[in-house]
Amino acid sequence: MSDALPRTARSFAPPVMEARRWIAGLTFPEDRPLLNVSQAAPVDPPPEPLRQEMARLVTEVPEAHLYGPVLGLPDLREEVAAQWSRDYAGEIAPAQVAITAGCNEAFAAAMSALADQGDEILLPVPYYFNHAMWLRMEGVPLVPLPAREGLLPDPEEAARLITDRTRAIVLVTPNNPGGVEYPAELVRAFYDLARERGIALVLDETYRDFDSRSSAAHQLFAEPDWDRTLVHLYSFSKTYRLTGHRVGAMIASPHRLAEAEKFLDTVTICPPQLGQFAALWGLRNLAQWRAGERDEILDRRAALEEAVAGLEGWELLGSGAYFAYFRHPFALPSNEAAEMLVKEAGVLMLPGTMFRPADDPEGAREMRVAFANVDREGISELARRLSGVTLG
Amino acid sequence: MSDALPRTARSFAPPVMEARRWIAGLTFPEDRPLLNVSQAAPVDPPPEPLRQEMARLVTEVPEAHLYGPVLGLPDLREEVAAQWSRDYAGEIAPAQVAITAGCNEAFAAAMSALADQGDEILLPVPYYFNHAMWLRMEGVPLVPLPAREGLLPDPEEAARLITDRTRAIVLVTPNNPGGVEYPAELVRAFYDLARERGIALVLDETYRDFDSRSSAAHQLFAEPDWDRTLVHLYSFSKTYRLTGHRVGAMIASPHRLAEAEKFLDTVTICPPQLGQFAALWGLRNLAQWRAGERDEILDRRAALEEAVAGLEGWELLGSGAYFAYFRHPFALPSNEAAEMLVKEAGVLMLPGTMFRPADDPEGAREMRVAFANVDREGISELARRLSGVTLG
Repeated sequence: MSDALPRTARSFAPPVMEARRWIAGLTFPEDRPLLNVSQAAPVDPPPEPLRQEMARLVTEVPEAHLYGPVLGLPDLREEVAAQWSRDYAGEIAPAQVAITAGCNEAFAAAMSALADQGDEILLPVPYYFNHAMWLRMEGVPLVPLPAREGLLPDPEEAARLITDRTRAIVLVTPNNPGGVEYPAELVRAFYDLARERGIALVLDETYRDFDSRSSAAHQLFAEPDWDRTLVHLYSFSKTYRLTGHRVGAMIASPHRLAEAEKFLDTVTICPPQLGQFAALWGLRNLAQWRAGERDEILDRRAALEEAVAGLEGWELLGSGAYFAYFRHPFALPSNEAAEMLVKEAGVLMLPGTMFRPADDPEGAREMRVAFANVDREGISELARRLSGVTLG
Repeated sequence: MSDALPRTARSFAPPVMEARRWIAGLTFPEDRPLLNVSQAAPVDPPPEPLRQEMARLVTEVPEAHLYGPVLGLPDLREEVAAQWSRDYAGEIAPAQVAITAGCNEAFAAAMSALADQGDEILLPVPYYFNHAMWLRMEGVPLVPLPAREGLLPDPEEAARLITDRTRAIVLVTPNNPGGVEYPAELVRAFYDLARERGIALVLDETYRDFDSRSSAAHQLFAEPDWDRTLVHLYSFSKTYRLTGHRVGAMIASPHRLAEAEKFLDTVTICPPQLGQFAALWGLRNLAQWRAGERDEILDRRAALEEAVAGLEGWELLGSGAYFAYFRHPFALPSNEAAEMLVKEAGVLMLPGTMFRPADDPEGAREMRVAFANVDREGISELARRLSGVTLG
């Protein structure tokens, strides 16, 4: 680390903004508009009743405009505690719930509350690039944990990578970018490993509402002392289409939340209040709608899996939630192939190079498709366009 | 730094939350309700026309709910650039403006884009405690620059404190907690010093809209290469009563903003969109209203200065914007005196110990009053209550 460089110089520019530059200034023919499968973000606003409620809130409820507690609205913390306790058949108290300005802030706050410069974090690769960006800026080396069979990391391999500097293992399930839903037993094995070694298991469940399984994704919240080990992260952004309002959550021990509170206070003072009220209303009133959204996403996933099954050279490594992750058929490295696909096929997807360290050769062979915003027709069109690109 | 402690353990709990605990569970008689002069925050919602506009936005404008660019809405960046260029008679391009999730995030992002662990930042004391909290967590030692005559820091003293690890001088004007408006020549002297030494001058002008002077607070934006040295921070929270929406700004070189973008992307992805649309509407439509708000605050400041003039033992060290800063008359250290005042006088103010390092004895003798939310009658009442407390 150079004397003269700031913290941020250790990290890299936001990949999503880089991908935006590939399409900036380009025009696409009307009969073949851009198919943008790059970002995991709803393109529609929240459902009408929630928008109406938000209009009422900004008009009639002063608190929607004013500072609130650093760790979030008490009613929302209580509702999350109650619903999560029910969903996971576990015990979560409101004091174990913090609301954050989105799930990225929850991750950053969790890392600051767990590790210091020079400590290490185990992170499966391919990873969500913002996790890697943050850890680099913080000077917290990420130790890559390779995804094996079915894009799943191996607890025994993780056990061998833990050192006395390791502070946490981070898992994302359903996974970004891989899509895969980690089996409950696998999550359990990682929990046991973390507990035995006295480190934290950080479980980012941003996409939990789109999990295809009817049972809980894991049973960890039923452990009597889960909060000594587990840190759970969540986002209200996708499910309620509140991306622009920045609302996420962190579930952890009150002690860890008190540490995170220092970070959250100095960065955002409080999570955006209107978004919190909206999330609370959504939790209380949109269960039915949420189930419909999940059905739709699962249907799109099925359509995607069908559509790419016959696609020459595209090997599906994993799919689920918003994502499908592929080994692509091109001779080009993935970052060049992604730019080529914009021009040749009018398709924007993100290259595997964004999801792996620069020295990992696998990244060049992989590609992420965020299919959640594309309907069945669009998914067929995606497959048609990809099949039309000459392999080289 | 211990091996086992996380980054946050180096910092302290949010002072505002601590002060909240002093009043938690207490009840105050109806004829003498709590006079809360602890926090610099509007207690009323935004003006009616802005609330109506926000209701329209959440109902009709999908973008108000969706992700936007990391550095903020282009229209808002453009409007800030135009209005600031006019106000400061300088030249600011939209590419030199970033929007952030509040001014605290702007500060955190600026620090990450300027310094790394082990670097040093010069910060006048008394300081805004969140600045100190952040720097501690980041492992960036703050070098205290004592406020001298009139609570103003001395550039010559600063010059002697600069080392080859110093990356920036941070000034807050109008000041929090001191209230004082730094003279333009003083700001200029610090700018020249920073430029000569090749470090940054970070100017937090959160309270600029309540500056009593009719001329610009400084002429730095008229310098041809201001962005090599100057980083300006701003908050939309106070002026438009948008505290709960989290909107601030950072004005700096495009290069520094590209560095800050890495931080902002990984922490909040984008600033809350609705708040940005609201800030834009406010900038375009509320100039008249804003001027009225300023008049009211300046009137309250005058009332405060009159009311405390005859108050035995209370020495006014500085006042301006939202704050008056005192040497208090009690034999107790300020943190104990502050708790005593809650019980004896039904007044909540923040002790000087919160605004200075623990080893600085001045903190125990000082007290901050955030008078902005108290009208003339309330200010008289405040003085009456304080005069009724027996000195000891």
